[in-house]
Amino acid sequence: MDATHLATLEHIKRAKYRYLRCVDLKRWDELADTLTPDATAEYGTPALGKTLSFTGRDEILDFLRNTLGGDAIVTTHSAGQPEIDIDGDTATGTWHFDDKVIAAEHHTVITGSAFYEDRYERGDDGTWRIAHTGYLRLYETTMSTKDIPSLTITTNPPAPTATH
Amino acid sequence: MDATHLATLEHIKRAKYRYLRCVDLKRWDELADTLTPDATAEYGTPALGKTLSFTGRDEILDFLRNTLGGDAIVTTHSAGQPEIDIDGDTATGTWHFDDKVIAAEHHTVITGSAFYEDRYERGDDGTWRIAHTGYLRLYETTMSTKDIPSLTITTNPPAPTATH
Amino acid sequence: MDATHLATLEHIKRAKYRYLRCVDLKRWDELADTLTPDATAEYGTPALGKTLSFTGRDEILDFLRNTLGGDAIVTTHSAGQPEIDIDGDTATGTWHFDDKVIAAEHHTVITGSAFYEDRYERGDDGTWRIAHTGYLRLYETTMSTKDIPSLTITTNPPAPTATH
Repeated sequence: MDATHLATLEHIKRAKYRYLRCVDLKRWDELADTLTPDATAEYGTPALGKTLSFTGRDEILDFLRNTLGGDAIVTTHSAGQPEIDIDGDTATGTWHFDDKVIAAEHHTVITGSAFYEDRYERGDDGTWRIAHTGYLRLYETTMSTKDIPSLTITTNPPAPTATH
Repeated sequence: MDATHLATLEHIKRAKYRYLRCVDLKRWDELADTLTPDATAEYGTPALGKTLSFTGRDEILDFLRNTLGGDAIVTTHSAGQPEIDIDGDTATGTWHFDDKVIAAEHHTVITGSAFYEDRYERGDDGTWRIAHTGYLRLYETTMSTKDIPSLTITTNPPAPTATH
Repeated sequence: MDATHLATLEHIKRAKYRYLRCVDLKRWDELADTLTPDATAEYGTPALGKTLSFTGRDEILDFLRNTLGGDAIVTTHSAGQPEIDIDGDTATGTWHFDDKVIAAEHHTVITGSAFYEDRYERGDDGTWRIAHTGYLRLYETTMSTKDIPSLTITTNPPAPTATH
């Protein structure tokens, strides 16, 4: 594992961190550049019902914008523990993550943990992007905030409105 | 801090990430190889009573299998903020982590944060393994899910049964 | 991105991890050395009211000691997903983090997620320190533990008393 290999690990992690930050901050245009044009995604969240599969950057972005784009939903993702294996211009990565979805108006909070199973590719421009993302859930809980009458939720700043 | 030092940090982190993933996914055989044969562990979780100490890889694995091996318990560990100091073929590491234990049938959820205080060793085969793991709790909470009637918990996939 | 650049990233991360660990373990004297003498901080936690701004290491430490120094409050911070850009002897860093504040005697738990927006500087002694820290909240919740009668909270070890 030489300096070039270590630098590649760093570039791949940056792509993933940027993707996660853009999801939580709803920065869809910036997020687009973290995915390959033909990227695929599988979101296996029980709260959404069956596993949802998307093919192509545009389809993934449409789903994220439509599901998370409004200011009624706050998401937070914390991912770590990367186990990344590089093979030339492609790589695989496993990450643990915790996430939370807060739909305050619907009095709903979803909390979960999972392992991402990703694939990455280096493009002709030298930039690493996510070619596939999916995850294996450890658990997921859903609850109504009405069960905790004292609970107050603030978002700061308010989530922006979707910009389709 | 040259490339060799940076690569060693990466190898040690990978050992830790693999250990944590194998605990949460109950992959006991794979987990065994992340520990030195004479590894020691101290789990100071208030919910388990006094600090539990184990000597030797087999004793640690027996404890983990017996305590977490069934499909009735889900655990999730997220560790980060590594402060790793290397001294030849040994190293020490401090990590912050959050963990959660869900025993849905017993209506119990345990949540906590702590700092790992680990020791690592490089074996004759060149592989870094965990020689000691222990932690210092910041807090731990235990609660019954019956206090939140709306709470639903799903695990996906269901945890495998223990394979002693 | 050569080995020197990668080593600098590592040094900056270590400064941040040390700062976070010292906050949660209330090690104020050790924390002081993670900040530049003229460091600034902006803590925009809704639970504290308006954004609180501090100028200079001493002012930041006074605030942290006074707010978190007693043994009645437990904090835990988990930060990750670092996006660090280096420009000579200065650097910027964005991090995602989750935090929790438990004031058990006041039956209060505050939970939140945010993105740190930090600035770092390398001193004449070659050590990287935090020159500015601030954050952008994704959400923050406050609740009374009285709503969950079964909840038990233990801290281990007990938080030390403040040492002003």
